[in-house]
Amino acid sequence: MAKQGYDFGLIGLGVMGRNFILNVADNGFKAFGYDLDPEKVKALQEEGGDLDRVNATDNLKTFITALEQPRKIMLLVPAGKIVDNVIEDLLPHIDQGDLIIDGGNSLFTDTDTRESYLREKGIHFFGAGVSGGAKGARKGPSIMPGGSREAYQEVKPIFEAVAAKYKGEPCVAYLGPKSAGNYVKMVHNGIEYGLMQLTSEIYDLLRKAGDMTNEEMHRLFDTWNKGRLQSFLVEITADILSKDDEHGPGQLVDKILDKAKQKGTGKWTSQNAMDLGIPVPSIDIAVSMREISALKTDRIKAEKLYGRPLPGKLDKAELEKMAEEALYFSFVITYAQGLHQLAEASEEYGYDLELGTIAKIWRAGCIIRAALLADIARAYQNDPGLSNLLLDASFASDIKDTLSSVRSLVAYGASHGIPLPGLSNSLTYFDAYTSGRLPLNLIQAQRDYFGSHTYERTDKEGIFHTEWED
Amino acid sequence: MAKQGYDFGLIGLGVMGRNFILNVADNGFKAFGYDLDPEKVKALQEEGGDLDRVNATDNLKTFITALEQPRKIMLLVPAGKIVDNVIEDLLPHIDQGDLIIDGGNSLFTDTDTRESYLREKGIHFFGAGVSGGAKGARKGPSIMPGGSREAYQEVKPIFEAVAAKYKGEPCVAYLGPKSAGNYVKMVHNGIEYGLMQLTSEIYDLLRKAGDMTNEEMHRLFDTWNKGRLQSFLVEITADILSKDDEHGPGQLVDKILDKAKQKGTGKWTSQNAMDLGIPVPSIDIAVSMREISALKTDRIKAEKLYGRPLPGKLDKAELEKMAEEALYFSFVITYAQGLHQLAEASEEYGYDLELGTIAKIWRAGCIIRAALLADIARAYQNDPGLSNLLLDASFASDIKDTLSSVRSLVAYGASHGIPLPGLSNSLTYFDAYTSGRLPLNLIQAQRDYFGSHTYERTDKEGIFHTEWED
Repeated sequence: MAKQGYDFGLIGLGVMGRNFILNVADNGFKAFGYDLDPEKVKALQEEGGDLDRVNATDNLKTFITALEQPRKIMLLVPAGKIVDNVIEDLLPHIDQGDLIIDGGNSLFTDTDTRESYLREKGIHFFGAGVSGGAKGARKGPSIMPGGSREAYQEVKPIFEAVAAKYKGEPCVAYLGPKSAGNYVKMVHNGIEYGLMQLTSEIYDLLRKAGDMTNEEMHRLFDTWNKGRLQSFLVEITADILSKDDEHGPGQLVDKILDKAKQKGTGKWTSQNAMDLGIPVPSIDIAVSMREISALKTDRIKAEKLYGRPLPGKLDKAELEKMAEEALYFSFVITYAQGLHQLAEASEEYGYDLELGTIAKIWRAGCIIRAALLADIARAYQNDPGLSNLLLDASFASDIKDTLSSVRSLVAYGASHGIPLPGLSNSLTYFDAYTSGRLPLNLIQAQRDYFGSHTYERTDKEGIFHTEWED
Repeated sequence: MAKQGYDFGLIGLGVMGRNFILNVADNGFKAFGYDLDPEKVKALQEEGGDLDRVNATDNLKTFITALEQPRKIMLLVPAGKIVDNVIEDLLPHIDQGDLIIDGGNSLFTDTDTRESYLREKGIHFFGAGVSGGAKGARKGPSIMPGGSREAYQEVKPIFEAVAAKYKGEPCVAYLGPKSAGNYVKMVHNGIEYGLMQLTSEIYDLLRKAGDMTNEEMHRLFDTWNKGRLQSFLVEITADILSKDDEHGPGQLVDKILDKAKQKGTGKWTSQNAMDLGIPVPSIDIAVSMREISALKTDRIKAEKLYGRPLPGKLDKAELEKMAEEALYFSFVITYAQGLHQLAEASEEYGYDLELGTIAKIWRAGCIIRAALLADIARAYQNDPGLSNLLLDASFASDIKDTLSSVRSLVAYGASHGIPLPGLSNSLTYFDAYTSGRLPLNLIQAQRDYFGSHTYERTDKEGIFHTEWED
């Protein structure tokens, strides 16, 4: 009677869930889905074809009974209270040694709470970030699992089969204990926020300073996507710029309202970076810009009140070259900040993360996949204790070559009223990080002046306080 | 026997507490202090002189018994667990109707928890931010109380007497229910972080682009402090620049280590602004810069690896004029962001804040006191529903006059590798806020492309989704 049951269970048959379970089945594992909505159950059964290969139900007991023990049950449901509800529904029916995997964007502290709650009951719990959107889930996502290392062995063959492959290597690895997987996915999304903001600024710059049409920008992003900027976000930007508007003439992108929404993972990344004391200003500003974008009514009022300066034009060929270099520079800076945060979180939360491995599983499948992640993986493999990507000699050389373009474009944006906050923050982060001496001696003096907060000196050891008003 | 007891009790006789209680006594109220440390008790008794006017003890029962009922007991102890411990120590000895005032920088959510816990026991609880440092506490701080409106009446005469005066008006007012007082103080400190960062950038710029000596900068800040930049932080910067180093030749400021510490209120401001969805990038970056300043070892390594560009020099008179305008501009932007956050918090937490009143009680006593707060108060009195200070016509006119200087200096910093992140973020915030159209349409398109997150259109109502890859 061995191996009669299904190898893998999945709860939540929305787009992501349906695609993920079909991916599992395509890779030779028998998969069983569960959703309260009979329509979704039916849709999966029809799309799956062979019920012996992939089946589904809206009955929880049927679902549990169908699974081979120890059960591997993945949740792809919205983060928050629903995850707890599903866990409580499962508990009376499952057995010690079973594994529950939360594949959603749960807050990492929630994952820690759930993991220890379930560990006491003998149930394994995994937070596993899944990136790649609906298509990634179907064709191969990047998967970021964290939890008990032994339990990972049970699900490893399935995850390695369904994950995206980069030159044959699966984009999944055991990342660390507790909420390590959720945490890494959170920072992945923070980096994603940063890269998206930067892409939008370059798009704005090309339009305003270069008068470029969507078609011209489409060709440019497409060209970039064949070089060192090759990445999912550059690729889809090229696609987006050439997409016609089915409701009228021109391209759809021009008709999309400039209010960008957010679901919270970028915000969590910034907020937690502040708790850790790690600067991630290229991510912070991406969060702020989504907030400013929401203030559309105020922005229209303010534009009436202040006007907008006319942008001076730049030579198109020169602009294209500078924009490529600036985007490369600021992408590197954004990854550097996110990885710095991961390094600190690894210490603080005991995740024992391998940053080289993380860069490797981001090389394909996920939203922030990019050619330069192979270089990043190499940098951390050369020096696993690298405290910041900027201190890698190979990156240092590439970054130096881009600097004059970055400086020119940020100066141009400041002079001509084109907001380039992501580029600016990437540059000022770089300039501050590479300054052996910063003017924050004045801030320490101010703090000591009004709050007796003391200071250190450059020329001798100790803690000092001065009565400034004598 | 009426009015035999002491009018006001104070727990925690550190510098702030000792100064505050002496201030209370100077204003004709009998004040009694309590501290576990007999040295501090003795120090206060000696400094106070007349024990009938100001006395102290290290015995809690003696302290409680000495106070007139309903008791008014203020805590000036470090934020956190200690506040809860002191409250628990007090509870068995005090009576219904007594008032406990937390004068420290407690996290506002802690204040909410304590207020409702004590309300159930019939005890009034106030979170009251106190700003002005040690000297302010002694000579007149700005006080930001929140809690029950009725209980405020009990303490109002004392607070109004001890508070700083701006043209005769006391810098204290009842701000709102629950944690309104702590919250306003938190944002006050967030603004303070922003202003300090900006001051340090201008100092850096004057040194590097103008080769100015400490003495020259001292004179410049001193001159600025007589004009529209008149403010506590500009005033003390002038003082700091002229302070000789008692350990050797030159000025002390040059010997202070450029690692700026923080105690958390700036970080809380940024983190909570993100929860509210309000952009405060001039505060966020001030937090980031303190973090970068802490990475001194890495910064020295990075400077060796990358070098630092040589700053081109600017004409000194021109630089001084531009620096004044840039500092004014970025100060206004920083206040605008903090006040925007307060407006949203007022809605979200039911504080019912009057922003004009808040600007008024910040005009004297506190660390962010500045001449321009009188103008800010006027703007909010003219239009209490002003959604952002930038939409006030009078500020708009002043800001327009400064813009070309701000643009030039930010461009100069970007070109020459002088990190001006606070100035840059103030400018890009302004440029984004005054842009009726931002490039975040591309971000919404990207989100819809990979995550089916939908978008709105500029030309018709509704929520749309596109299959981008067709």
